[in-house]
Amino acid sequence: MSRHSGFFHHVYFWLREGGGAEDARALADGCRKHLSDIPGVQSITVATPAGTPRAVVDNTYAVALLMEFADQAAHDGYQEHPDHLKFIDECKHLWSRVQIYDAVPDGA
Amino acid sequence: MSRHSGFFHHVYFWLREGGGAEDARALADGCRKHLSDIPGVQSITVATPAGTPRAVVDNTYAVALLMEFADQAAHDGYQEHPDHLKFIDECKHLWSRVQIYDAVPDGA
Repeated sequence: MSRHSGFFHHVYFWLREGGGAEDARALADGCRKHLSDIPGVQSITVATPAGTPRAVVDNTYAVALLMEFADQAAHDGYQEHPDHLKFIDECKHLWSRVQIYDAVPDGA
Repeated sequence: MSRHSGFFHHVYFWLREGGGAEDARALADGCRKHLSDIPGVQSITVATPAGTPRAVVDNTYAVALLMEFADQAAHDGYQEHPDHLKFIDECKHLWSRVQIYDAVPDGA
């Protein structure tokens, strides 16, 4: 088992209408370029749908941004960091919808 | 940066109507009890909403099950494992909706 963080920030992006593989590539590259070196980012993985053929699995998103932070304060700092804002500014035209789940480990 | 797997399996559960903290606790406990020791599970975290106050963040689920596997084959084996089927059988009355995202690291 790998060691994990205290705050998970999982972002799923759906592309703008008509957006294809090039847009997905640009978005994935944008995530890596702008977000990887922001202080407080404990882990960042840019991912794509596995395509698991099960009705209960949503494979319709284009890019997943899976991040971990030590705690909520680290996440909050990331949200306001200039590089994060630059990412949004440069890449927001690529997506039409964003679905975010923030989660903290259950205390039990 | 921590080392990561090749297959992410993220499950978000919404409770049955009227389900409260006790149901969430039972579901979280069921995840830990039945799923932690299944072969091929590289990482398992049972989590709850961070409650981040942002419109774009979905805080309406009750329990998140965040799993990592080495690859899709390991995930597929998990799906069919008797302990996983027992978890579903014992806990499915607790949830009304399940949203799953399966993701693999982007190859770039």
